[in-house]
Amino acid sequence: MKAVQLPVVHATPPDGADLRIDPALAQRWLTNFLRDEMIRRRSKNVAIVGVSGGVDSAVVAYLCADALGAENVYGVRMPYRTSSSESFEHGGRVIKATGIHDLVVDISDAVDGYLQYESDASPTRRGNVMARQRTIVLFDQSAKYDGLPVGTGNKSERMLGYFTWHADDSPPINPIGDLFKTQVWELARHLGIPNEIIEKPATADLIRGQTDEGDLGISYLRADRILNRILQGYRAEDIVASGFDRAEVEIVTRRVNATHWKRHLPTTAMISTTAINEYYLRPVDY
Amino acid sequence: MKAVQLPVVHATPPDGADLRIDPALAQRWLTNFLRDEMIRRRSKNVAIVGVSGGVDSAVVAYLCADALGAENVYGVRMPYRTSSSESFEHGGRVIKATGIHDLVVDISDAVDGYLQYESDASPTRRGNVMARQRTIVLFDQSAKYDGLPVGTGNKSERMLGYFTWHADDSPPINPIGDLFKTQVWELARHLGIPNEIIEKPATADLIRGQTDEGDLGISYLRADRILNRILQGYRAEDIVASGFDRAEVEIVTRRVNATHWKRHLPTTAMISTTAINEYYLRPVDY
Repeated sequence: MKAVQLPVVHATPPDGADLRIDPALAQRWLTNFLRDEMIRRRSKNVAIVGVSGGVDSAVVAYLCADALGAENVYGVRMPYRTSSSESFEHGGRVIKATGIHDLVVDISDAVDGYLQYESDASPTRRGNVMARQRTIVLFDQSAKYDGLPVGTGNKSERMLGYFTWHADDSPPINPIGDLFKTQVWELARHLGIPNEIIEKPATADLIRGQTDEGDLGISYLRADRILNRILQGYRAEDIVASGFDRAEVEIVTRRVNATHWKRHLPTTAMISTTAINEYYLRPVDY
Repeated sequence: MKAVQLPVVHATPPDGADLRIDPALAQRWLTNFLRDEMIRRRSKNVAIVGVSGGVDSAVVAYLCADALGAENVYGVRMPYRTSSSESFEHGGRVIKATGIHDLVVDISDAVDGYLQYESDASPTRRGNVMARQRTIVLFDQSAKYDGLPVGTGNKSERMLGYFTWHADDSPPINPIGDLFKTQVWELARHLGIPNEIIEKPATADLIRGQTDEGDLGISYLRADRILNRILQGYRAEDIVASGFDRAEVEIVTRRVNATHWKRHLPTTAMISTTAINEYYLRPVDY
């Protein structure tokens, strides 16, 4: 009997070469994806994009304008009264550069309408209320304009669970959900998105002074390379052996393992052999 | 070569006998499910239940109190200024009977804080804003009490797509998601839920005078039997041939087919071989 040959773990230098994309090809494929999913499969040609002033939503706004025509895309800015005015201004620049419709909905009254009863709520709780309030606005504006909200969550934050559940992850289609943050930056440069937007520190902008990399304790440049290896099936020890810092590998591994529930539909108690999403699946979900 | 034997479609009388459950067994299994999913798998012993005054949330409140102890369950009533006072009163009766904590959060200011900008919004849009606002409250109260929101959507409304996306379907665990509405009624009777709550017409209570069966155009008694046959793989023609009304079979089939996207995670454009929920899946999600 022959022994099973296990794959050899190569000590790949952690230079990120394996994360490089062809941005021109990515742009073509993602605009086709948007046309296919929206127009052909869902008979919708209007996209609603929450434009935060950050690079992710900027990329999605550019892709949507490219795919559907600027006249069919609504960029929605949803400031809360303590939100950064720089973010608002950057969002305005994206809307102007793409020529998409400019919508502004101030969420302060809605958010405070609930938080008035929760004056002791932590900054995290407040931030989650704001993120979910923005989702209400996006879905309702989609109903108003007979369109679809388009998702702006990238693969790094989706894998790290660094997002508000049923908020950032809720739109029915997402063109950049399989792009790591560093790949979003690469695509953004190709699309001609202003440098200030690409180069400023990424932030959820829910708490003053907050940055993603500060919250996470690791840079996206390093996190993405570790995530990519985890997704390819390497164990933490293999990744450390191939040249990564143990503490950083642990930060990433811990986050991925602790947040699987955020990438999953609800768990339903099975009573029958036809439980939805447990036994009952459709070959093609259209 | 032997011909493949296709299953014979029996002309089962549409009497619903195949939907009968053993309510005592269902109660035992569902309380075990709640303990297992909450305490053992998620290390949470506090449940947050939106108590609407309807039978679904009443059943979930009873099951949670049974599984976790009434002192670990919060029943949240979330009236809007036009909501039915009877619903509120029925919800109060459930909270009193189970001995769970009684929370009331009025969502009027939050909802109107947004709808002030959308004075022309249709009743459906307003209803969806309310349903999603209630979800914000449930998630935030869960953060406050270090608990988990528990879902109250039944199998009939989940299959018919008769719910607000990212609202009723959003809690991480759902004990009654595989019970048809008629089975929820059966379990409710066994649990001793007051008759007025079981016997009143089911309603989403988002629009005045609204009832589920009015919106759907078919009774749950008939819809459940048709849904059950669809889930078992019978075609519409087979179901009609076995004694169901063609128009009713069409109502149900059309709704199931048009709402598959509501029972699905977002569609992500694949860029890699490790796209989340497309290629990257975990063998056990806990």
